[in-house]
Amino acid sequence: MIQVIKNGTVVTMDEKRQKKYEKLDIVIKDDTIDKITDSYTGTYDKLIDASGKIVLPGLINCHTHLGMSIFRATNDDYPLQDWLTKKIWPIEDHMTDEDIYYTTLLSCLEMIKTGTTTSNDMYFGVNGSLKAIEEAKVRSVFSRCLMGNMDSDSLERIEEFKKLVNENQGKELLTFTVTPHSMYTCNEEYLMECEKVATELHLPIHIHYSENEKEVEGIRNDYKTSPAKALEKVGYLNHKLILAHGTFISEEDQKLLASHDVSIATNPISNLNLGCGIADLVQYKKNGLNICLGTDGQGSGNTLNMFYHMSVVDQLQKAKYQDPTVFNSYEVLKMATIYGARALGLEDKIGSIEEGKKADIIILDLHNTEVYPTVDLINQIVHNVESSNIDTTIVNGCVLMENHQLTLPIDEEKLKKDINSIIYRLMPKEN
Amino acid sequence: MIQVIKNGTVVTMDEKRQKKYEKLDIVIKDDTIDKITDSYTGTYDKLIDASGKIVLPGLINCHTHLGMSIFRATNDDYPLQDWLTKKIWPIEDHMTDEDIYYTTLLSCLEMIKTGTTTSNDMYFGVNGSLKAIEEAKVRSVFSRCLMGNMDSDSLERIEEFKKLVNENQGKELLTFTVTPHSMYTCNEEYLMECEKVATELHLPIHIHYSENEKEVEGIRNDYKTSPAKALEKVGYLNHKLILAHGTFISEEDQKLLASHDVSIATNPISNLNLGCGIADLVQYKKNGLNICLGTDGQGSGNTLNMFYHMSVVDQLQKAKYQDPTVFNSYEVLKMATIYGARALGLEDKIGSIEEGKKADIIILDLHNTEVYPTVDLINQIVHNVESSNIDTTIVNGCVLMENHQLTLPIDEEKLKKDINSIIYRLMPKEN
Repeated sequence: MIQVIKNGTVVTMDEKRQKKYEKLDIVIKDDTIDKITDSYTGTYDKLIDASGKIVLPGLINCHTHLGMSIFRATNDDYPLQDWLTKKIWPIEDHMTDEDIYYTTLLSCLEMIKTGTTTSNDMYFGVNGSLKAIEEAKVRSVFSRCLMGNMDSDSLERIEEFKKLVNENQGKELLTFTVTPHSMYTCNEEYLMECEKVATELHLPIHIHYSENEKEVEGIRNDYKTSPAKALEKVGYLNHKLILAHGTFISEEDQKLLASHDVSIATNPISNLNLGCGIADLVQYKKNGLNICLGTDGQGSGNTLNMFYHMSVVDQLQKAKYQDPTVFNSYEVLKMATIYGARALGLEDKIGSIEEGKKADIIILDLHNTEVYPTVDLINQIVHNVESSNIDTTIVNGCVLMENHQLTLPIDEEKLKKDINSIIYRLMPKEN
Repeated sequence: MIQVIKNGTVVTMDEKRQKKYEKLDIVIKDDTIDKITDSYTGTYDKLIDASGKIVLPGLINCHTHLGMSIFRATNDDYPLQDWLTKKIWPIEDHMTDEDIYYTTLLSCLEMIKTGTTTSNDMYFGVNGSLKAIEEAKVRSVFSRCLMGNMDSDSLERIEEFKKLVNENQGKELLTFTVTPHSMYTCNEEYLMECEKVATELHLPIHIHYSENEKEVEGIRNDYKTSPAKALEKVGYLNHKLILAHGTFISEEDQKLLASHDVSIATNPISNLNLGCGIADLVQYKKNGLNICLGTDGQGSGNTLNMFYHMSVVDQLQKAKYQDPTVFNSYEVLKMATIYGARALGLEDKIGSIEEGKKADIIILDLHNTEVYPTVDLINQIVHNVESSNIDTTIVNGCVLMENHQLTLPIDEEKLKKDINSIIYRLMPKEN
């Protein structure tokens, strides 16, 4: 099947092109970008008219907990530990696979509607999550969150994960990472057990890391060395490694991590909301770390809309350095696309609009008065796009949303009712 | 004329009520909130069904330059001084009254569509601005930006302002402030000349103040005292005073300003974008300053959508203190409503939904999947509302937008074309 996206202003994110954006036609053959040309005049099965619109690679969200959508707007005024113990864990303890199917499905629709085509997820209840992800047809780097101290439950989680990987080999939209939750919720032996799984299955590792200063202190006490050296000790630097958060990393540790091609998935909004702080991304970049962008769960990240997170991450660096030239919108757009693909080991498939890559593409319409005018396009994309500007979302050549309408056979109104009944069943009533 | 907003969940922002929100009917008689009741059964001329929706006081934007909408998305990667000299001033020099009519009208529509009913504006080209503001029927605290060193141009600006006030007395939607631009663009004598106008016309003063550290240093050098004491010296503390920005204020100055009931209109996004920094609002509040919220112009503030600025201002304080309990959503909502009204001397008329106040009211619809669910309503309002959630905007009893449709006889498509022709005439071409 040939689909053509015609007459759009295309931001390819292809570093080999000289222009940041230009008028181009994109020819999609089945799941792949077959041709990018000034003006396509051949035949096609489907035409997508992008006149006056902006075409971008689908965004890549490098740190999510898709099952946590019901925790949106619950974190106000709570320190991290209180939030977890009072708002999150008591409810998570009672969530069934079916609940997690619904909460994940809501997140998937939220991603599609806000232009994200790939997520790097870490949660439990994998049967429910996987069902939702496959139904929503989004691209997913998937896992089963692992935590514990070598107790039988924790070892069972590893077996559950291995079974998950084995049963889902070769699926086009699905790859896996090993996801030990963090260095404070897994003991050293268990972290090493997870490392063995990464070796055995040839998978990257994705772990929460140095989210706040208290955590860093704890790791230093437990391991009698720096957090990066502790990671080295448990063998993690021998693997493709994605560190979620990394809000506080010493310069020495930055250099050690960079020498092993480690990626940092920064979660700026979550770090603000939970009072963690502002990561020094300018320095990380200078020291050679690959920085990509995550939203975290909606509980701390508010929304999976990556555009909102892009805007804030740029501004925070400018404020941190009291210098607006230390960061810029194009760099941020890379974090949300090609750097994300690189972090996940998917840079040959996604992250930019290039011939031969998979057709993960979004289209924006920036014509509504309240974002008008668009003087500097890249700046506008990073700072002023709302959900309502996202017009079309394509994953692997499959159009999941077109002209703001989902094409999936999913009943949104029923889904919201299902989510409500989960909330009323599990949440303490307020006000 | 009687209008009734029925069955909404109303966030009144009335400190006398015990609940932050409750189901209420609001009866509007002409321009005034006549009755707030559990269930209104009387007659009416117009019914607005707010079932399942959220009703709020219209938001108050305490620092705008409405004429600057064409500078949206122009500030990336530019330090303040370069941005002003290369991007802003060369264009402003050539803007006609007609240009400013169009750029202001765009801003007014942006406000209406994003739920802001009152702005506190400072710009030039007042004939154009005023025409737009009156056409858009928004409430406005208006002015003519004053700057100079007692040269004839600067004195002429004062005369222009006095004429403006005299010619527009007694208009329901219009009040005025005296707006010397800043302490670094006006010399001491001119600042005192402006002060005389405030005395003569009994008006508040609105001035840019301590926006970045360099400015604070400059004032200290020029006045040989602290910025607040310099304000005292030129007589400004004897007036109702709104300080825009106030990013850096010493604790001693905070106390001096608070003892004179001074308000700080903080502009968090603009302060990030221009690399100014993060104001210590937690401390300002502790020291008794009234803090309200502004967006600044779209050039540095990105958007006039106050919801976006509300979300960020809350998160920044939480991050600054590495403590999520230092600030909360309800406090932020006060900054954008009742504290703003207080700053502008309009707390008897606007800023909350109370019997006897003017009917400046907005209605939100939070049912779209990508902001669902709404567990903590106040948190959700402050952190997850986008333009598309704003359903209805009412100013002074007049419905300016209903079910997302503007009711004003303004041709948006023509306006965008007019804006484009201004841009192509005045802006250097890029890419």
